[in-house]
Amino acid sequence: MNSPASLNGRYLEDLAVGQVFHGGSVRMEADAIKRFAREFDPQPFHVDETAAVDSLFGGLAASGWHTAAVTMRLLIDGELRLAGGVIGSGGELSWPLPTRPGDELRIESEVMSVTPSRSRPERGMVVLRTRTFNQRDEIVQELSAKLIAWRRPA
Amino acid sequence: MNSPASLNGRYLEDLAVGQVFHGGSVRMEADAIKRFAREFDPQPFHVDETAAVDSLFGGLAASGWHTAAVTMRLLIDGELRLAGGVIGSGGELSWPLPTRPGDELRIESEVMSVTPSRSRPERGMVVLRTRTFNQRDEIVQELSAKLIAWRRPA
Repeated sequence: MNSPASLNGRYLEDLAVGQVFHGGSVRMEADAIKRFAREFDPQPFHVDETAAVDSLFGGLAASGWHTAAVTMRLLIDGELRLAGGVIGSGGELSWPLPTRPGDELRIESEVMSVTPSRSRPERGMVVLRTRTFNQRDEIVQELSAKLIAWRRPA
Repeated sequence: MNSPASLNGRYLEDLAVGQVFHGGSVRMEADAIKRFAREFDPQPFHVDETAAVDSLFGGLAASGWHTAAVTMRLLIDGELRLAGGVIGSGGELSWPLPTRPGDELRIESEVMSVTPSRSRPERGMVVLRTRTFNQRDEIVQELSAKLIAWRRPA
């Protein structure tokens, strides 16, 4: 194991259940939605406005993985700032509503648990629930991610 | 609700627990790893080989969201081919190992459950577990996704 890349930022000791962190926002343009989808999720309802009308979505929608990737960017640029970076081992993900062209996405993260590791004294695990909202304050994604948090060096 | 965009492909009636579907493979180049990360996950260990050496990863690693996006592409291009497309409402995700530059990723999906909807007679839900392997047959991602499956039109 190597030491955290960044010594700035929050350590395990700085995190507590119920803390909330915000991030900036990003506008999801139709071009970006289609560009992402052409590379990673080239289904008609993600790449073609006309074809999308006849789909479940009834119009162009972003790939859920695009919403997830943009959420990650908002998390990196937001208030959270974990020492050593935001490194997840996994989590639970849901997309209650699609992201649409023109949507303005923002995030709100809440610390759900903080657990020191028994076997690795230098670290612990934090469950962070990040909700991604559109401009109508509707949730387009909810992610409960297990993140590594480092203990403050002695 | 609109009808499925594509009438080719598998319906709920064609899916059964234990079915396995494969996909092609894709090589994860360092340039693509850094390009994805610069846009969505610009942390040192995803964008800079030198800085990555001092991180948890000990070298350049792909963003987990990049592994997820590439997995989606393999799923779309693979054997699964659901009528109406691959549309997920969420799921559970884990990244047991990082994806490294030069890794050759492939997927294997297994149907874990098939559940007709009680309230919507035209559809149901399928839980599909997709494992993403590297060229050493190590699992770099496991995703259990809840997907919509349409019933075959009468």
